Amino acid sequence: MSATRFDVTGVGNAIVDVFAQVDDQFLTQNKIEKAAMNLIDEDRAEILYNLMPSGREISGGSAANTLAGIASLGGRGAYIGKVADDQLGKIFAHDMRAIGVDYQTAALRGGPATARSLIMITPDAQRSMNTFLGASVMFDEIDVDVERIQAATVTYLEGYLFDREEAKAAFVKASEAAKAAGRKVSLTLSDTFCVDRHRTSFLQLVKNHIDLLFANEAELMALYETDDFDTALEKVRADTQVAAVTRSEKGAVVISKDETVVTPAAPVSAVLDTTGAGDLFASGFLLGYARGASWDICARLGAVAAAEIISHIGARPEQSLEKLAHSAGIEWSDQA
Amino acid sequence: MSATRFDVTGVGNAIVDVFAQVDDQFLTQNKIEKAAMNLIDEDRAEILYNLMPSGREISGGSAANTLAGIASLGGRGAYIGKVADDQLGKIFAHDMRAIGVDYQTAALRGGPATARSLIMITPDAQRSMNTFLGASVMFDEIDVDVERIQAATVTYLEGYLFDREEAKAAFVKASEAAKAAGRKVSLTLSDTFCVDRHRTSFLQLVKNHIDLLFANEAELMALYETDDFDTALEKVRADTQVAAVTRSEKGAVVISKDETVVTPAAPVSAVLDTTGAGDLFASGFLLGYARGASWDICARLGAVAAAEIISHIGARPEQSLEKLAHSAGIEWSDQA
Repeated sequence: MSATRFDVTGVGNAIVDVFAQVDDQFLTQNKIEKAAMNLIDEDRAEILYNLMPSGREISGGSAANTLAGIASLGGRGAYIGKVADDQLGKIFAHDMRAIGVDYQTAALRGGPATARSLIMITPDAQRSMNTFLGASVMFDEIDVDVERIQAATVTYLEGYLFDREEAKAAFVKASEAAKAAGRKVSLTLSDTFCVDRHRTSFLQLVKNHIDLLFANEAELMALYETDDFDTALEKVRADTQVAAVTRSEKGAVVISKDETVVTPAAPVSAVLDTTGAGDLFASGFLLGYARGASWDICARLGAVAAAEIISHIGARPEQSLEKLAHSAGIEWSDQA
Repeated sequence: MSATRFDVTGVGNAIVDVFAQVDDQFLTQNKIEKAAMNLIDEDRAEILYNLMPSGREISGGSAANTLAGIASLGGRGAYIGKVADDQLGKIFAHDMRAIGVDYQTAALRGGPATARSLIMITPDAQRSMNTFLGASVMFDEIDVDVERIQAATVTYLEGYLFDREEAKAAFVKASEAAKAAGRKVSLTLSDTFCVDRHRTSFLQLVKNHIDLLFANEAELMALYETDDFDTALEKVRADTQVAAVTRSEKGAVVISKDETVVTPAAPVSAVLDTTGAGDLFASGFLLGYARGASWDICARLGAVAAAEIISHIGARPEQSLEKLAHSAGIEWSDQA
């Protein structure tokens, strides 16, 4: 197996986030499902934007946040995802490259605008997302950059993208390209609505293509249609090599064929905005995984990255995660 | 004199800010004058943007920040300033309206893009601005909305805009319209580079049209070409009805014909970003002035608003300034 140029290549929806603080009444009045990802069309995006408070724009997108976190940890990453040739698209591309992520996907011309997510943060720090997918869904098989996938130790696929048939084909193509080069493939389930809508194809993908699965508690139980967490854990143990399951403030559980490793969450003085917590857990875990670290180190790297992201508004790191992880006494290999 | 619809109508450069944290070396390497407003053209904006770290976009513009602060204090404001018909222009307009500022200036079509300011924050919390004025400079006499100016107790003019001949004519037109309706006119000197380039016309404007002048220490001394602060204070006392002069952590000095009132700065636990400190001081002072408060109350309202803005990144309030001011025990009239 040849040396790799990247620790991780991520594939996902390229989105700019618009953050605003609202009260719970705003969610109820505007029929926004709390703490979930609500998919909206352009008309509803326009209506909701007119109703929402003054905001701030920060590049987002689940796998894109993960790659930004990997770069902040000192890892080498590439990202594949579609923006439009407009101002928000330029902001997204700038922010990826500025943090050191290789990002070369061609911008869409003459189609819908760059995707944006209107993210309402309630006083309990929960985020409720309202995403207009715009140009990001114009992603299909031809956008799969085989060279960047084969050049990465791990390819990381975002479940949100899986919501369309074209993307399912793209995911299979990406997985097969990675496997052909002797690389690993990873997936995040992203949200229970994704799982509910695509359970059969998700299960096929997990069983046939995925080496490392990310899920939170609710997503994993939705995948296996069970109310019992332990039952879900035993099912996923049979279906994948490794699963990293997050449980918010209860920390993470790593399930491999012969081990179950429980890691606590990292301490946070005040939780301001939970947007990106799962994405950033994946940053740390994936980097550890790409560098051959133990499951405990992988999960601790994830916990440190997640703790930084929930301490401020926005799903991109504001401090060097590499410094934070070293300060927390976590050691990992600088060799891929 | 008839009742007014607005406490303040502001006229200024409509700008979206792009904030990033850099070290001092970044400023030196890229020849950015520290703590100043550097005017740049579109090519340099492109080059600097490519070099700067991952950012976040927050609506800005000096007088626009001031109006956002007035709205957050519970005041009634209108704003006049030019954006382009593009994504950043829509963000700017949304953010003004969402906070409750009346904003109706027609967006520019087919010209330069919405103005943006690349703001580099150094570890000492100083901001160094690099502003591409884009569509905002396409503002001239015909954009002066006489109806909104005559409907406001005070018209507030931003010195930055004064950098062009067309804007000078617009300022005189706005001042005369306000006076004709028996209203007050206020001006901020904005930056020493504005003062140095337009000293004669600034002095004419101050002597002939301005009832209330805002300046910081350096700007006031530049206006009167003196190194002695007390000399500058006596000169401005002769030239205007009132001057509110800010001195950073040393607080503010209010100079009227027969009084000199010194007010301390409001306490801040940690200064993160000084962008907007002067703009928000003006918010509080102007609202107090429009409501007939004493100079001390005007300055204390200004100090509370400035303290909020420097405690986070971005020049728009993140908390209700009205609540903060009431918590600080400041009382003012809710009658205009």
